[in-house]
Amino acid sequence: MKSINVGLIGTGYMGKCHALAWNAVKPVFADVPEIRLVHLGEATDELARAKAAEFGFSRASGDWRRVVEDPEVDIVSITTPNRFHAEMAIAALEAGKHVWCEKPMAPEPADAEAMLAAARASGKVAILGYNYIQNPVIRHIRRLLDEGAIGAVNHLRVEMDEDFMADAAAPFMYRHEASSGYGAIDDFGVHPLSLIHMLLGGVARVMCDMAKPYQSRKTAGDETRPVEVFDIATILMRLENGASGVIALNRAAWGRKGRLTLQIFGSEGSILYDQERMNEFRLYLTADRTTEQGFRTVLAAPHHPPYDRFIPAPGHGLGFNDLKVVECRQLVGLMLGEETTVIDFEDGIRIERTIHAMARSFREGRWVEVA
Amino acid sequence: MKSINVGLIGTGYMGKCHALAWNAVKPVFADVPEIRLVHLGEATDELARAKAAEFGFSRASGDWRRVVEDPEVDIVSITTPNRFHAEMAIAALEAGKHVWCEKPMAPEPADAEAMLAAARASGKVAILGYNYIQNPVIRHIRRLLDEGAIGAVNHLRVEMDEDFMADAAAPFMYRHEASSGYGAIDDFGVHPLSLIHMLLGGVARVMCDMAKPYQSRKTAGDETRPVEVFDIATILMRLENGASGVIALNRAAWGRKGRLTLQIFGSEGSILYDQERMNEFRLYLTADRTTEQGFRTVLAAPHHPPYDRFIPAPGHGLGFNDLKVVECRQLVGLMLGEETTVIDFEDGIRIERTIHAMARSFREGRWVEVA
Amino acid sequence: MKSINVGLIGTGYMGKCHALAWNAVKPVFADVPEIRLVHLGEATDELARAKAAEFGFSRASGDWRRVVEDPEVDIVSITTPNRFHAEMAIAALEAGKHVWCEKPMAPEPADAEAMLAAARASGKVAILGYNYIQNPVIRHIRRLLDEGAIGAVNHLRVEMDEDFMADAAAPFMYRHEASSGYGAIDDFGVHPLSLIHMLLGGVARVMCDMAKPYQSRKTAGDETRPVEVFDIATILMRLENGASGVIALNRAAWGRKGRLTLQIFGSEGSILYDQERMNEFRLYLTADRTTEQGFRTVLAAPHHPPYDRFIPAPGHGLGFNDLKVVECRQLVGLMLGEETTVIDFEDGIRIERTIHAMARSFREGRWVEVA
Amino acid sequence: MKSINVGLIGTGYMGKCHALAWNAVKPVFADVPEIRLVHLGEATDELARAKAAEFGFSRASGDWRRVVEDPEVDIVSITTPNRFHAEMAIAALEAGKHVWCEKPMAPEPADAEAMLAAARASGKVAILGYNYIQNPVIRHIRRLLDEGAIGAVNHLRVEMDEDFMADAAAPFMYRHEASSGYGAIDDFGVHPLSLIHMLLGGVARVMCDMAKPYQSRKTAGDETRPVEVFDIATILMRLENGASGVIALNRAAWGRKGRLTLQIFGSEGSILYDQERMNEFRLYLTADRTTEQGFRTVLAAPHHPPYDRFIPAPGHGLGFNDLKVVECRQLVGLMLGEETTVIDFEDGIRIERTIHAMARSFREGRWVEVA
Repeated sequence: MKSINVGLIGTGYMGKCHALAWNAVKPVFADVPEIRLVHLGEATDELARAKAAEFGFSRASGDWRRVVEDPEVDIVSITTPNRFHAEMAIAALEAGKHVWCEKPMAPEPADAEAMLAAARASGKVAILGYNYIQNPVIRHIRRLLDEGAIGAVNHLRVEMDEDFMADAAAPFMYRHEASSGYGAIDDFGVHPLSLIHMLLGGVARVMCDMAKPYQSRKTAGDETRPVEVFDIATILMRLENGASGVIALNRAAWGRKGRLTLQIFGSEGSILYDQERMNEFRLYLTADRTTEQGFRTVLAAPHHPPYDRFIPAPGHGLGFNDLKVVECRQLVGLMLGEETTVIDFEDGIRIERTIHAMARSFREGRWVEVA
Repeated sequence: MKSINVGLIGTGYMGKCHALAWNAVKPVFADVPEIRLVHLGEATDELARAKAAEFGFSRASGDWRRVVEDPEVDIVSITTPNRFHAEMAIAALEAGKHVWCEKPMAPEPADAEAMLAAARASGKVAILGYNYIQNPVIRHIRRLLDEGAIGAVNHLRVEMDEDFMADAAAPFMYRHEASSGYGAIDDFGVHPLSLIHMLLGGVARVMCDMAKPYQSRKTAGDETRPVEVFDIATILMRLENGASGVIALNRAAWGRKGRLTLQIFGSEGSILYDQERMNEFRLYLTADRTTEQGFRTVLAAPHHPPYDRFIPAPGHGLGFNDLKVVECRQLVGLMLGEETTVIDFEDGIRIERTIHAMARSFREGRWVEVA
Repeated sequence: MKSINVGLIGTGYMGKCHALAWNAVKPVFADVPEIRLVHLGEATDELARAKAAEFGFSRASGDWRRVVEDPEVDIVSITTPNRFHAEMAIAALEAGKHVWCEKPMAPEPADAEAMLAAARASGKVAILGYNYIQNPVIRHIRRLLDEGAIGAVNHLRVEMDEDFMADAAAPFMYRHEASSGYGAIDDFGVHPLSLIHMLLGGVARVMCDMAKPYQSRKTAGDETRPVEVFDIATILMRLENGASGVIALNRAAWGRKGRLTLQIFGSEGSILYDQERMNEFRLYLTADRTTEQGFRTVLAAPHHPPYDRFIPAPGHGLGFNDLKVVECRQLVGLMLGEETTVIDFEDGIRIERTIHAMARSFREGRWVEVA
Repeated sequence: MKSINVGLIGTGYMGKCHALAWNAVKPVFADVPEIRLVHLGEATDELARAKAAEFGFSRASGDWRRVVEDPEVDIVSITTPNRFHAEMAIAALEAGKHVWCEKPMAPEPADAEAMLAAARASGKVAILGYNYIQNPVIRHIRRLLDEGAIGAVNHLRVEMDEDFMADAAAPFMYRHEASSGYGAIDDFGVHPLSLIHMLLGGVARVMCDMAKPYQSRKTAGDETRPVEVFDIATILMRLENGASGVIALNRAAWGRKGRLTLQIFGSEGSILYDQERMNEFRLYLTADRTTEQGFRTVLAAPHHPPYDRFIPAPGHGLGFNDLKVVECRQLVGLMLGEETTVIDFEDGIRIERTIHAMARSFREGRWVEVA
């Protein structure tokens, strides 16, 4: 492959993040083909042109179908609102493009299944934007688990908390409507599940509770409307490997900004991680001498690949956007036929089935098998 | 009351802790009557005499009934294994003594109910040894909650973890038998519940899962025996005040030594606490200027009473045993007719009913009302 | 020795701390003679009687000489203001009593030297109240250093910070007068030096700077008076073992409450300690596998003696006052002829000579040998 | 300015960092002209061509003078070893190019002065690569200091520690020769000084000690050679604003990877920062209610500009390389005539004079004015 020719649809939070990754992946990693930024799609021609200039794309369109159909484009980054993912991804796959779609796949299970079917039919690379799993620290945790450093894992706790829904005085908006999803479990829950899948495998069964910190909110017109989504969720679970676990999610957790914590307990040690301090993890090993056993705080370093591709000195810190660059490198690797670690549509559908099992468990007040 | 005359039964972990508290309460607090250490009971006369000399008691008996019946004794500390609590506490109350009994009340619900009945019938002070609630830091958190510092509490997470059951190679012992209780929920769960009761009120309903990190252990005779208790438990709950919550308990959590954490989320802030760093708590307030909002780490200080009775300088640190001294002062206050904060037998029975509701929820795989 | 008969002079901050220690040492440690609280001295008969009742002493005097001369007293705790230490300690030693005197020895070097001479002449036990060195965590650090766990120590940093002098609006008081001492170096500096002596040995030479955060303060009568002491000091040093080091002291450090940190760097690892979290230390070992090297946070536990004498469970935490109980046990051990770890008058005079060398270095703007 | 045309000399650690910044600055900030990567210089044509392909440069040369003389180039990034800085920067300035030179200016004071003279003569933008000052967190600390949030600053402590010189068994290399500089003070000391200059202004006088953790090392040929540089330095200082301070530097500090800490004490609060956790700072304010005063841990967020240009969500974390992108934006701003915060050659020379004053202070064993 002489070059990789990129199309991008959407230029918001994640759109910019993809653009930065496509700009950085070659200078960071070197061992990839030339990256050509070919075609950017946005809602209008004008916005598309402006963003193409910012992000370095050659062509711009106010109609996303032009990007998907552009014969020069090899791979399409899809970063639009979730409800557009299915249509765009399926169109891109049917047009013979590889697809890098932001998570989650789709609000409706049927749409997600259709995306998977399209990916299978196309034979193209189709992955989802689960960037937290690309942290060199998370990859090293995976290596330690694979080596048996902490023995057999028997218990797991995962928390994900932010506070953008914590202000009781903030007005009612579309994200408070049931049509936007369940709330915490789909908006947040997919991230913990991506980490669980990558580190420990699938979830077998779930028992879910969901709660609203505020029952209603004022509209712009000063009317009171009931909130229809659940910003808080707590989930008991059993993994396929038999370990017990709990997930707690809260989008209304004052003071938490990007928290995503893991507590992994094994027969010979424990591992802790907190995304708010994403350049370190903590490790307890029973192999250490008894009188000095304690959690080690290990800082990310060049010996935790691919940290070394970013910085040759330890402890200097990667950023959130760097994780997308790693993800981009994984995607390119897949396109080149390498073995890489990603959440593809096959894995993605398992994550989304787990979310829907949580919702059903809550509705029915009982344990539900993920199946 | 000219003096308070103390009897003590049991001299193990908690027995020594009571003895230290009885020795310290007068020099620490000053505003209590003279404390006279009158009668110590242990399993044998010899052990009783040795411990009486160590702890400063005048009399010693190898029969606990002598302590309970000693006419000079006003108050009996009961620190024997749980299965003896009911018999001893009831005997003491019936003999007209006040009772300070270590938690939990009794393995069997009927025994706990009998203890409560005896306490009611006697009109005497009857409290349980829930020392974590006596931490000046916890009391200050209570004050903040009462003041509405973090607004209305809507979510709560509590974890309690130690690792004394974490060694898979440790032999089978009586604590692995079903006769010793459920495992984590009664051994550990009562502590989180004491904090929840003190800070936020009662638990309305629970959904509990329980797990075994190790299915079996070797006996001393090198046979394999199934473990009958559950060292891990995870519980979804709703409080009487409507807040949702989760409790996670693990006696096999490598690296955790005395962890007991609270995460309390409100409409205007959050509070965090970790017993392993018991001289501090963390507080997030939305009242702070936006650009400098963050969790404050507040160190225990003389303005968090009764820290000032121990040390006049801030940040110097109380210890675990000091909490028992505060508890002792609360008990003495009750005997003198003051309003104090303790877990008495009335509160204690509510905690134990919650434990049994957890156990039933696990057995039946469904939510159970605490009633 | 059938019993140890105690006299106590002074009942303020440290007086109460001694009283608590004398009450606790037997129930905590068991392996000491009976402790009899014989005679308490205070400024007036009335105060002495009140405090004797609180602390459990049999006799009380408004004249400290009565305590020193009491034929029944074996050991005198001296906890009065520093300027009284010399007279009282010398009188006690000359009366054939052992002495437990709070640090520092005396404001005037000549007085400290006289105290040492009296101790030598008496042949009695004469120690100083340096409790921070008695922390089981500090003792374990000493053990690690002795074992060579971090190799040869080549650099050391020590900080001690509190904020009781930080309020610029607080009025002028006697502690701001030159007659009360230098400021930070004698008030604070002795604690870091006690730790350095205990862990690494003596200081060879010092280069000291001293500073005033506030040049003047208002008196009660609203006049402005220049502050004559230095609340801030920074000291470069070389240890007798050749290591370089720095000490930083600040009594006006807003937010620091009881901070006393060590950073010890060796050829094979590092050790960190912070008194504000006195139940833990941090350890980095190059012997760990490279990819998981990191600072371990080790919690105090029963295998760090004498933690086990206080609590049988790890991670539950000792308090500031418990350190005095350990110190008391060390003192009793000395009286019984055991080898123990204390700062006696011999060590104490070396610490105070170092302080005076710092002061001279500052006055003369040059390095000064401690000699 | 229609576009900014970039030349880059050197492609090592910092060369790659510059290349990444030049690739990212437009997509991150948008409000800059098109960035054209024109000419890359390396030691050989072959290496230059390979790196040009990786980093996206159009032209490549094995002779750096071609880059400097390229008429299309507007600005030259100089990232070669320190000894080449002066020659290259002066040549570039004389060729009418703007210059972005990595720190420090030059090993020899005279060379640094010549660089400054060339910059002044050219009228071109000439800045140094002090990226730590570009952290949104550091900028926010600057804003707080300017607002007087912590009152008047009276004391400062700065530490910078890594462990790449900590291995006693590592062989002797050129960096251990005196010709490579002093050791810690020039290699590390410039970073703390850049922060001090940016936050608090200049250093008035210094008193410096320097030490060697290891006196000698083995050469590749197994001979023993004395180490000629000082990996450890400790410096007392007074700032021009009157505050006292201390700097401690250690390149042989096992366990420290990218530590660069600030402790800033003021009359109404304190600020703490640690580069190893570069997305947070700690703030203590006496304006908070007494009973809840404590250090707040504030996470970087969009309201700390220009964090918002990278990520719209708080607490998600920038990385070390992102700081260079901010620096690049500052440089571009300067080229466009904006007011920006950088260390230009004028500030840089003051930093380097301070370093040389430290060295002289050590040689002469006395305080030295920076002048």
